[in-house]
Amino acid sequence: MKLSPDHRQALRDVLTWRRDVRHFKTDPIDAERLDRLRAAMDLAPSVGNARPWRVMQVQNPDKRAAIIADFEAANDEAASKYSGTKRDSYMALKLAGLREAPVHLAVFTEHEPDAGHGLGRQTMPEMLAYSTVAAIHTLWLAARADNIGMGWVSILNPASVHGILDAPATWSLTAYLCLGIAQDDNDTPLLHRKEWQENSPTRWRTV
Amino acid sequence: MKLSPDHRQALRDVLTWRRDVRHFKTDPIDAERLDRLRAAMDLAPSVGNARPWRVMQVQNPDKRAAIIADFEAANDEAASKYSGTKRDSYMALKLAGLREAPVHLAVFTEHEPDAGHGLGRQTMPEMLAYSTVAAIHTLWLAARADNIGMGWVSILNPASVHGILDAPATWSLTAYLCLGIAQDDNDTPLLHRKEWQENSPTRWRTV
Repeated sequence: MKLSPDHRQALRDVLTWRRDVRHFKTDPIDAERLDRLRAAMDLAPSVGNARPWRVMQVQNPDKRAAIIADFEAANDEAASKYSGTKRDSYMALKLAGLREAPVHLAVFTEHEPDAGHGLGRQTMPEMLAYSTVAAIHTLWLAARADNIGMGWVSILNPASVHGILDAPATWSLTAYLCLGIAQDDNDTPLLHRKEWQENSPTRWRTV
Repeated sequence: MKLSPDHRQALRDVLTWRRDVRHFKTDPIDAERLDRLRAAMDLAPSVGNARPWRVMQVQNPDKRAAIIADFEAANDEAASKYSGTKRDSYMALKLAGLREAPVHLAVFTEHEPDAGHGLGRQTMPEMLAYSTVAAIHTLWLAARADNIGMGWVSILNPASVHGILDAPATWSLTAYLCLGIAQDDNDTPLLHRKEWQENSPTRWRTV
């Protein structure tokens, strides 16, 4: 199938308007829309077609509270690494929407999947986690195209989250995601607007 | 900006028709199209907006030959792990388009980027490589939307490729990519069609 300039422009719109969202409305997301996102993940590339992503939707209030506590501890620890105005800037950033987001997803990688039969990961075993990351990015774009915001929370102790959620021993946490309707939207990353880290183009080298 | 059902359908088309391509035509890709792909990568999410991806376009024939030799050694080693009909199946798979693809990109992760100031990766340092993976997936989708095929070669020794390309010590290889015009296209993964690993839906658990 030959894709058209309209496809290219539509993809560019989705990429341009995708943000890491930390400010959510509390409105729920209905099951049908969520299932569309689940199905979109299945279109992601994966090494040997191993499809190693495993997703837990976290609804239990006690488990959510334990994860928020883990975030807060990791965030305080991270803040202590900065000093002066950078510390003030850090403290002023809102880094997670865990309290407001109606949907929490813990995304794990299965390190011993039957699927794929080991293809393509003997010299690069990290390909399994990378496949999960591609599925997460797919989810992110599908959510944005459906006007659902997503934020990736990485200020967490993966082993703690694994324990809180009683995940199987062969899984490791790849990402903890918040989804919901964004309070507002913007085509410029928050960290650029807040002057934490500006955007800049990457250049390719030729060898 | 509120995205439309047309955006959703266009994204779905791009996701559905993206393949891991191993059969390329040798026609070159012009610089303008490649630069559009480079610019698309800059729209990828990255931890702390650190943008840690570093891309080398490999044109030197000696370096390409050394990388092909590394692939072949890793592939023979991988094949030796299978036996019986699975080994025959493995040997029958074409796993890379390194000889035909006009464009080779080595994509590295910079592990000590100035950008981002360490944000979001103190408990999960793997977030830097994950950011590079999201940029690679962005490149993949942008290429597909522009009717350029891409294949990700992971049957390689990352340290060997790093050495062949004289990459800086703070970089590690995340992916080696082939790009070019696909010989044909299909909406079903090759590994599914070749009965190596069929597609199957992933289910979410709720906790």
